[in-house]
Amino acid sequence: MTQRGGFISVEGGEGCGKSTQMALLQQHLEGQGREVVLTREPGGTPTGEMIRNILQHDASGEDICPPAEVLLFAASRAQHVAHVIRPALERGAWVLCDRFVDSSLAYQSGGREIALETVLEVNEIALNGCWPECTIWYDLPVEVAQQRLIERGAAPDRIEAEQGGFHERVARTYAELAERFPDRIHRVNADQDIEQVAGDTQEALKAVFGDRW
Amino acid sequence: MTQRGGFISVEGGEGCGKSTQMALLQQHLEGQGREVVLTREPGGTPTGEMIRNILQHDASGEDICPPAEVLLFAASRAQHVAHVIRPALERGAWVLCDRFVDSSLAYQSGGREIALETVLEVNEIALNGCWPECTIWYDLPVEVAQQRLIERGAAPDRIEAEQGGFHERVARTYAELAERFPDRIHRVNADQDIEQVAGDTQEALKAVFGDRW
Repeated sequence: MTQRGGFISVEGGEGCGKSTQMALLQQHLEGQGREVVLTREPGGTPTGEMIRNILQHDASGEDICPPAEVLLFAASRAQHVAHVIRPALERGAWVLCDRFVDSSLAYQSGGREIALETVLEVNEIALNGCWPECTIWYDLPVEVAQQRLIERGAAPDRIEAEQGGFHERVARTYAELAERFPDRIHRVNADQDIEQVAGDTQEALKAVFGDRW
Repeated sequence: MTQRGGFISVEGGEGCGKSTQMALLQQHLEGQGREVVLTREPGGTPTGEMIRNILQHDASGEDICPPAEVLLFAASRAQHVAHVIRPALERGAWVLCDRFVDSSLAYQSGGREIALETVLEVNEIALNGCWPECTIWYDLPVEVAQQRLIERGAAPDRIEAEQGGFHERVARTYAELAERFPDRIHRVNADQDIEQVAGDTQEALKAVFGDRW
Protein backbone atom coordinates (compact mmCIF):
# COMPACT_ATOMS: atom_id res chain seq x y z
CA MET A 1 0.00 0.00 0.00
CA THR A 2 1.30 3.44 -0.94
CA GLN A 3 1.80 5.75 2.05
CA ARG A 4 -0.17 8.95 1.82
CA GLY A 5 1.79 12.19 1.33
CA GLY A 6 0.55 15.71 1.90
CA PHE A 7 0.48 19.15 0.36
CA ILE A 8 2.03 22.07 2.23
CA SER A 9 2.45 25.58 0.91
CA VAL A 10 4.72 28.13 2.52
CA GLU A 11 4.03 31.85 2.33
CA GLY A 12 5.66 35.05 3.45
CA GLY A 13 7.48 38.05 2.06
CA GLU A 14 11.14 38.23 1.09
CA GLY A 15 13.46 37.98 4.08
CA CYS A 16 11.04 35.93 6.21
CA GLY A 17 13.30 32.85 6.31
CA LYS A 18 11.03 30.65 4.18
CA SER A 19 13.83 28.91 2.26
CA THR A 20 15.69 27.89 5.43
CA GLN A 21 12.53 26.50 6.97
CA MET A 22 11.56 24.64 3.80
CA ALA A 23 14.97 22.95 3.76
CA LEU A 24 14.35 21.80 7.35
CA LEU A 25 10.92 20.41 6.42
CA GLN A 26 12.45 18.55 3.50
CA GLN A 27 15.11 17.03 5.83
CA HIS A 28 12.43 16.00 8.30
CA LEU A 29 10.44 14.15 5.63
CA GLU A 30 13.39 12.64 3.78
CA GLY A 31 14.69 11.44 7.18
CA GLN A 32 11.54 9.30 7.27
CA GLY A 33 12.34 7.94 3.81
CA ARG A 34 9.59 9.93 2.13
CA GLU A 35 9.69 11.39 -1.38
CA VAL A 36 9.59 15.18 -1.24
CA VAL A 37 8.73 17.37 -4.22
CA LEU A 38 10.01 20.88 -3.60
CA THR A 39 8.44 23.26 -6.05
CA ARG A 40 7.83 26.96 -6.46
CA GLU A 41 5.63 29.52 -8.16
CA PRO A 42 5.54 31.07 -10.65
CA GLY A 43 7.00 28.48 -12.99
CA GLY A 44 7.24 24.78 -12.28
CA THR A 45 6.26 23.62 -15.83
CA PRO A 46 7.43 24.50 -19.38
CA THR A 47 4.10 26.26 -20.00
CA GLY A 48 4.47 28.07 -16.67
CA GLU A 49 7.90 29.31 -17.72
CA MET A 50 6.45 30.67 -20.97
CA ILE A 51 3.71 32.42 -19.00
CA ARG A 52 6.31 33.80 -16.59
CA ASN A 53 8.15 35.23 -19.56
CA ILE A 54 4.97 37.03 -20.67
CA LEU A 55 4.40 38.38 -17.16
CA GLN A 56 7.93 39.73 -17.03
CA HIS A 57 7.29 41.70 -20.26
CA ASP A 58 10.32 40.04 -21.79
CA ALA A 59 8.99 40.07 -25.27
CA SER A 60 5.83 41.98 -25.99
CA GLY A 61 6.84 45.33 -24.47
CA GLU A 62 3.13 45.82 -23.73
CA ASP A 63 1.54 46.50 -20.34
CA ILE A 64 -0.38 43.55 -18.95
CA CYS A 65 -3.81 44.73 -17.73
CA PRO A 66 -4.77 43.62 -14.19
CA PRO A 67 -7.40 41.00 -15.21
CA ALA A 68 -4.94 39.43 -17.69
CA GLU A 69 -2.30 39.30 -14.96
CA VAL A 70 -4.65 37.45 -12.60
CA LEU A 71 -5.67 35.04 -15.38
CA LEU A 72 -2.07 34.36 -16.48
CA PHE A 73 -0.85 33.60 -12.95
CA ALA A 74 -3.84 31.31 -12.52
CA ALA A 75 -3.20 29.54 -15.85
CA SER A 76 0.38 28.87 -14.76
CA ARG A 77 -0.93 27.53 -11.45
CA ALA A 78 -3.43 25.25 -13.24
CA GLN A 79 -0.57 23.65 -15.20
CA HIS A 80 1.53 23.38 -12.04
CA VAL A 81 -1.34 21.55 -10.30
CA ALA A 82 -2.12 19.27 -13.25
CA HIS A 83 1.45 18.35 -14.21
CA VAL A 84 3.46 18.53 -10.96
CA ILE A 85 1.45 18.71 -7.74
CA ARG A 86 -1.45 16.33 -8.38
CA PRO A 87 0.72 13.55 -9.90
CA ALA A 88 3.15 13.82 -6.96
CA LEU A 89 0.32 13.52 -4.44
CA GLU A 90 -1.15 10.60 -6.36
CA ARG A 91 2.08 8.64 -6.03
CA GLY A 92 2.21 9.35 -2.29
CA ALA A 93 4.87 12.08 -2.25
CA TRP A 94 4.90 15.15 -0.02
CA VAL A 95 4.70 18.44 -1.90
CA LEU A 96 6.32 21.54 -0.41
CA CYS A 97 5.42 24.58 -2.47
CA ASP A 98 7.25 27.88 -2.06
CA ARG A 99 4.39 30.37 -2.56
CA PHE A 100 1.07 29.23 -3.93
CA VAL A 101 -2.49 30.51 -4.18
CA ASP A 102 -2.23 32.84 -1.18
CA SER A 103 0.57 34.76 -2.89
CA SER A 104 -1.83 35.64 -5.70
CA LEU A 105 -4.47 36.56 -3.18
CA ALA A 106 -2.09 38.70 -1.10
CA TYR A 107 -0.12 40.36 -3.90
CA GLN A 108 -2.81 40.79 -6.54
CA SER A 109 -5.70 41.59 -4.27
CA GLY A 110 -3.83 43.26 -1.37
CA GLY A 111 -0.91 44.66 -3.32
CA ARG A 112 -2.42 45.50 -6.71
CA GLU A 113 -5.90 46.13 -5.26
CA ILE A 114 -7.89 43.73 -7.47
CA ALA A 115 -11.05 42.46 -5.69
CA LEU A 116 -10.22 39.48 -3.46
CA GLU A 117 -13.35 37.61 -4.56
CA THR A 118 -12.29 37.92 -8.21
CA VAL A 119 -8.81 36.55 -7.57
CA LEU A 120 -10.27 33.78 -5.43
CA GLU A 121 -12.85 32.79 -8.08
CA VAL A 122 -10.22 32.54 -10.82
CA ASN A 123 -7.89 30.54 -8.60
CA GLU A 124 -10.59 28.09 -7.56
CA ILE A 125 -10.87 27.21 -11.25
CA ALA A 126 -7.09 26.84 -11.54
CA LEU A 127 -6.81 24.63 -8.43
CA ASN A 128 -9.71 22.41 -9.45
CA GLY A 129 -10.03 21.20 -5.84
CA CYS A 130 -6.30 20.83 -5.18
CA TRP A 131 -5.94 23.18 -2.19
CA PRO A 132 -2.97 22.79 0.18
CA GLU A 133 -3.89 20.86 3.30
CA CYS A 134 -1.73 23.23 5.33
CA THR A 135 -0.24 26.64 4.61
CA ILE A 136 2.47 28.03 6.85
CA TRP A 137 2.50 31.82 6.80
CA TYR A 138 5.77 33.28 8.07
CA ASP A 139 4.66 36.61 9.45
CA LEU A 140 7.36 39.26 9.76
CA PRO A 141 6.85 43.00 10.34
CA VAL A 142 7.54 44.92 7.13
CA GLU A 143 10.33 46.98 8.69
CA VAL A 144 12.15 43.86 9.99
CA ALA A 145 11.92 42.24 6.54
CA GLN A 146 13.32 45.35 4.87
CA GLN A 147 16.17 45.55 7.39
CA ARG A 148 17.06 41.89 6.71
CA LEU A 149 17.09 42.54 2.97
CA ILE A 150 19.39 45.56 3.39
CA GLU A 151 21.75 43.44 5.55
CA ARG A 152 21.81 40.80 2.79
CA GLY A 153 22.89 43.49 0.36
CA ALA A 154 19.67 43.75 -1.69
CA ALA A 155 19.78 46.90 -3.80
CA PRO A 156 17.83 49.67 -2.03
CA ASP A 157 16.03 50.60 -5.27
CA ARG A 158 14.44 47.18 -5.38
CA ILE A 159 13.02 47.78 -1.91
CA GLU A 160 12.11 51.38 -2.72
CA ALA A 161 10.33 50.20 -5.84
CA GLU A 162 7.46 48.77 -3.89
CA GLN A 163 6.95 51.51 -1.35
CA GLY A 164 3.71 53.39 -0.99
CA GLY A 165 2.00 50.97 1.38
CA PHE A 166 2.37 47.99 -0.99
CA HIS A 167 4.08 45.75 1.57
CA GLU A 168 1.69 46.84 4.31
CA ARG A 169 -1.32 45.96 2.15
CA VAL A 170 0.19 42.57 1.34
CA ALA A 171 0.81 41.86 5.03
CA ARG A 172 -2.72 42.95 5.92
CA THR A 173 -4.18 40.65 3.27
CA TYR A 174 -2.20 37.67 4.58
CA ALA A 175 -3.71 38.41 8.02
CA GLU A 176 -7.20 38.55 6.50
CA LEU A 177 -6.62 35.27 4.68
CA ALA A 178 -5.50 33.60 7.91
CA GLU A 179 -8.79 34.68 9.49
CA ARG A 180 -10.80 33.51 6.52
CA PHE A 181 -9.15 30.09 6.25
CA PRO A 182 -8.29 29.31 9.89
CA ASP A 183 -8.17 25.52 9.36
CA ARG A 184 -5.70 25.79 6.51
CA ILE A 185 -3.47 28.81 7.18
CA HIS A 186 -1.24 28.74 10.24
CA ARG A 187 0.62 31.90 11.23
CA VAL A 188 4.16 31.46 12.51
CA ASN A 189 5.96 34.44 14.02
CA ALA A 190 9.06 34.78 11.81
CA ASP A 191 10.62 37.46 14.02
CA GLN A 192 12.43 34.84 16.17
CA ASP A 193 15.56 32.65 16.02
CA ILE A 194 15.66 30.03 13.28
CA GLU A 195 15.27 27.28 15.93
CA GLN A 196 12.21 28.89 17.47
CA VAL A 197 10.61 29.40 14.06
CA ALA A 198 11.38 25.75 13.21
CA GLY A 199 9.82 24.61 16.51
CA ASP A 200 6.63 26.59 15.90
CA THR A 201 6.45 25.22 12.35
CA GLN A 202 6.78 21.64 13.58
CA GLU A 203 4.07 22.25 16.14
CA ALA A 204 1.66 23.57 13.49
CA LEU A 205 2.34 20.65 11.13
CA LYS A 206 1.98 18.08 13.90
CA ALA A 207 -1.40 19.61 14.77
CA VAL A 208 -2.59 19.35 11.16
CA PHE A 209 -1.13 16.02 10.06
CA GLY A 210 -0.84 14.11 13.36
CA ASP A 211 0.77 10.70 12.78
CA ARG A 212 1.33 11.45 9.08
CA TRP A 213 3.97 14.06 10.02
CA MET B 1 -19.09 65.94 -30.27
CA THR B 2 -17.72 62.48 -31.02
CA GLN B 3 -20.26 60.17 -32.64
CA ARG B 4 -20.87 57.02 -30.71
CA GLY B 5 -19.66 53.74 -32.23
CA GLY B 6 -20.71 50.24 -31.31
CA PHE B 7 -19.37 46.80 -30.55
CA ILE B 8 -20.49 43.86 -32.70
CA SER B 9 -19.14 40.34 -32.50
CA VAL B 10 -19.72 37.75 -35.19
CA GLU B 11 -19.88 34.04 -34.46
CA GLY B 12 -20.29 30.80 -36.35
CA GLY B 13 -18.29 27.76 -37.40
CA GLU B 14 -15.92 27.51 -40.37
CA GLY B 15 -17.71 27.73 -43.69
CA CYS B 16 -20.61 29.83 -42.36
CA GLY B 17 -19.75 32.89 -44.52
CA LYS B 18 -18.69 35.11 -41.61
CA SER B 19 -15.78 36.79 -43.42
CA THR B 20 -17.92 37.80 -46.42
CA GLN B 21 -20.60 39.26 -44.17
CA MET B 22 -18.08 41.13 -42.02
CA ALA B 23 -16.64 42.76 -45.15
CA LEU B 24 -20.16 43.93 -46.06
CA LEU B 25 -20.69 45.38 -42.57
CA GLN B 26 -17.38 47.20 -42.79
CA GLN B 27 -18.39 48.69 -46.19
CA HIS B 28 -21.73 49.78 -44.75
CA LEU B 29 -20.10 51.65 -41.88
CA GLU B 30 -17.18 53.11 -43.85
CA GLY B 31 -19.72 54.30 -46.42
CA GLN B 32 -21.07 56.48 -43.61
CA GLY B 33 -17.59 57.83 -42.94
CA ARG B 34 -17.18 55.86 -39.72
CA GLU B 35 -13.95 54.39 -38.36
CA VAL B 36 -14.17 50.61 -38.27
CA VAL B 37 -11.82 48.42 -36.25
CA LEU B 38 -11.90 44.89 -37.63
CA THR B 39 -10.33 42.53 -35.16
CA ARG B 40 -10.25 38.83 -34.39
CA GLU B 41 -9.61 36.31 -31.68
CA PRO B 42 -7.37 34.78 -30.56
CA GLY B 43 -4.62 37.31 -30.98
CA GLY B 44 -5.10 41.02 -31.52
CA THR B 45 -2.27 42.18 -29.20
CA PRO B 46 1.42 41.27 -28.82
CA THR B 47 0.63 39.55 -25.51
CA GLY B 48 -2.29 37.76 -27.18
CA GLU B 49 0.05 36.48 -29.88
CA MET B 50 2.41 35.11 -27.22
CA ILE B 51 -0.52 33.40 -25.51
CA ARG B 52 -1.68 32.00 -28.84
CA ASN B 53 1.77 30.54 -29.31
CA ILE B 54 1.48 28.78 -25.95
CA LEU B 55 -1.99 27.46 -26.85
CA GLN B 56 -0.68 26.05 -30.11
CA HIS B 57 1.98 24.09 -28.20
CA ASP B 58 4.64 25.68 -30.36
CA ALA B 59 7.28 25.66 -27.73
CA SER B 60 6.61 23.76 -24.53
CA GLY B 61 5.61 20.44 -26.05
CA GLU B 62 3.41 19.97 -22.97
CA ASP B 63 -0.34 19.35 -22.88
CA ILE B 64 -2.35 22.32 -21.71
CA CYS B 65 -4.87 21.18 -19.07
CA PRO B 66 -8.48 22.34 -19.61
CA PRO B 67 -8.58 24.97 -16.82
CA ALA B 68 -5.30 26.48 -18.07
CA GLU B 69 -6.72 26.63 -21.59
CA VAL B 70 -9.81 28.52 -20.42
CA LEU B 71 -7.66 30.91 -18.38
CA LEU B 72 -5.18 31.53 -21.22
CA PHE B 73 -7.90 32.31 -23.78
CA ALA B 74 -9.48 34.64 -21.24
CA ALA B 75 -6.16 36.38 -20.51
CA SER B 76 -5.70 37.01 -24.21
CA ARG B 77 -9.25 38.39 -24.36
CA ALA B 78 -8.61 40.69 -21.39
CA GLN B 79 -5.63 42.22 -23.21
CA HIS B 80 -7.65 42.51 -26.41
CA VAL B 81 -10.39 44.38 -24.53
CA ALA B 82 -8.00 46.66 -22.63
CA HIS B 83 -5.66 47.51 -25.52
CA VAL B 84 -7.81 47.32 -28.66
CA ILE B 85 -11.57 47.19 -28.14
CA ARG B 86 -12.15 49.60 -25.27
CA PRO B 87 -9.84 52.34 -26.67
CA ALA B 88 -11.57 52.05 -30.09
CA LEU B 89 -15.01 52.41 -28.53
CA GLU B 90 -13.81 55.34 -26.43
CA ARG B 91 -12.78 57.24 -29.55
CA GLY B 92 -16.17 56.55 -31.20
CA ALA B 93 -15.14 53.77 -33.60
CA TRP B 94 -17.19 50.71 -34.50
CA VAL B 95 -15.59 47.42 -33.50
CA LEU B 96 -16.31 44.29 -35.55
CA CYS B 97 -14.84 41.27 -33.85
CA ASP B 98 -14.51 37.94 -35.65
CA ARG B 99 -15.24 35.49 -32.79
CA PHE B 100 -15.31 36.68 -29.23
CA VAL B 101 -16.55 35.46 -25.86
CA ASP B 102 -19.22 33.14 -27.29
CA SER B 103 -16.54 31.16 -29.13
CA SER B 104 -14.94 30.30 -25.79
CA LEU B 105 -18.34 29.45 -24.39
CA ALA B 106 -19.29 27.28 -27.38
CA TYR B 107 -15.94 25.57 -28.03
CA GLN B 108 -14.62 25.16 -24.50
CA SER B 109 -17.89 24.43 -22.78
CA GLY B 110 -19.79 22.75 -25.62
CA GLY B 111 -16.83 21.29 -27.48
CA ARG B 112 -14.36 20.44 -24.72
CA GLU B 113 -17.10 19.89 -22.13
CA ILE B 114 -15.89 22.30 -19.44
CA ALA B 115 -18.78 23.63 -17.30
CA LEU B 116 -20.44 26.61 -18.99
CA GLU B 117 -20.67 28.52 -15.70
CA THR B 118 -16.91 28.17 -15.19
CA VAL B 119 -16.07 29.49 -18.65
CA LEU B 120 -18.59 32.30 -18.20
CA GLU B 121 -17.20 33.30 -14.79
CA VAL B 122 -13.64 33.50 -16.08
CA ASN B 123 -14.69 35.49 -19.13
CA GLU B 124 -16.71 37.98 -17.11
CA ILE B 125 -13.45 38.84 -15.37
CA ALA B 126 -11.65 39.17 -18.70
CA LEU B 127 -14.34 41.38 -20.24
CA ASN B 128 -14.57 43.62 -17.21
CA GLY B 129 -17.99 44.87 -18.40
CA CYS B 130 -17.08 45.19 -22.08
CA TRP B 131 -19.70 42.84 -23.61
CA PRO B 132 -20.65 43.20 -27.28
CA GLU B 133 -23.84 45.15 -27.74
CA CYS B 134 -24.84 42.77 -30.52
CA THR B 135 -23.64 39.32 -31.54
CA ILE B 136 -24.58 37.89 -34.91
CA TRP B 137 -24.56 34.12 -34.86
CA TYR B 138 -24.41 32.59 -38.36
CA ASP B 139 -26.16 29.29 -37.86
CA LEU B 140 -25.38 26.60 -40.42
CA PRO B 141 -26.16 22.87 -40.13
CA VAL B 142 -22.98 20.93 -39.43
CA GLU B 143 -23.30 18.82 -42.60
CA VAL B 144 -23.72 21.90 -44.82
CA ALA B 145 -20.64 23.51 -43.25
CA GLN B 146 -18.59 20.36 -43.81
CA GLN B 147 -19.77 20.13 -47.43
CA ARG B 148 -18.70 23.77 -48.02
CA LEU B 149 -15.28 23.09 -46.51
CA ILE B 150 -14.78 20.05 -48.74
CA GLU B 151 -15.76 22.15 -51.79
CA ARG B 152 -13.20 24.76 -50.77
CA GLY B 153 -10.58 22.01 -50.72
CA ALA B 154 -10.00 21.81 -46.97
CA ALA B 155 -8.08 18.65 -46.18
CA PRO B 156 -10.49 15.92 -45.05
CA ASP B 157 -8.28 15.00 -42.08
CA ARG B 158 -8.80 18.47 -40.66
CA ILE B 159 -12.55 17.89 -40.77
CA GLU B 160 -12.22 14.31 -39.54
CA ALA B 161 -10.08 15.52 -36.65
CA GLU B 162 -13.02 17.01 -34.87
CA GLN B 163 -15.57 14.29 -35.37
CA GLY B 164 -17.24 12.46 -32.53
CA GLY B 165 -20.04 14.95 -31.98
CA PHE B 166 -17.70 17.90 -31.40
CA HIS B 167 -19.32 20.13 -34.03
CA GLU B 168 -22.80 19.10 -32.93
CA ARG B 169 -22.04 20.00 -29.30
CA VAL B 170 -20.64 23.38 -30.41
CA ALA B 171 -23.77 24.08 -32.47
CA ARG B 172 -26.01 23.06 -29.59
CA THR B 173 -24.15 25.37 -27.22
CA TYR B 174 -24.53 28.33 -29.60
CA ALA B 175 -28.28 27.63 -29.59
CA GLU B 176 -28.29 27.53 -25.79
CA LEU B 177 -26.36 30.81 -25.62
CA ALA B 178 -28.85 32.46 -27.98
CA GLU B 179 -31.64 31.43 -25.61
CA ARG B 180 -29.72 32.61 -22.57
CA PHE B 181 -28.79 36.02 -24.02
CA PRO B 182 -31.75 36.82 -26.29
CA ASP B 183 -31.17 40.59 -26.22
CA ARG B 184 -27.57 40.27 -27.33
CA ILE B 185 -27.31 37.21 -29.59
CA HIS B 186 -29.19 37.25 -32.89
CA ARG B 187 -29.38 34.08 -34.94
CA VAL B 188 -29.09 34.45 -38.70
CA ASN B 189 -29.79 31.45 -40.93
CA ALA B 190 -26.53 31.07 -42.88
CA ASP B 191 -27.93 28.35 -45.15
CA GLN B 192 -29.12 30.95 -47.70
CA ASP B 193 -27.69 33.08 -50.55
CA ILE B 194 -25.11 35.70 -49.56
CA GLU B 195 -27.67 38.48 -50.30
CA GLN B 196 -30.33 36.91 -48.13
CA VAL B 197 -27.86 36.42 -45.26
CA ALA B 198 -26.75 40.05 -45.68
CA GLY B 199 -30.37 41.23 -45.59
CA ASP B 200 -31.14 39.30 -42.41
CA THR B 201 -27.96 40.65 -40.83
CA GLN B 202 -28.90 44.25 -41.66
CA GLU B 203 -32.35 43.68 -40.21
CA ALA B 204 -30.94 42.39 -36.93
CA LEU B 205 -28.47 45.29 -36.63
CA LYS B 206 -31.12 47.88 -37.45
CA ALA B 207 -33.30 46.41 -34.69
CA VAL B 208 -30.48 46.67 -32.14
CA PHE B 209 -28.85 49.98 -33.08
CA GLY B 210 -31.74 51.91 -34.70
CA ASP B 211 -30.50 55.28 -35.98
CA ARG B 212 -26.92 54.50 -34.99
CA TRP B 213 -26.74 51.85 -37.74
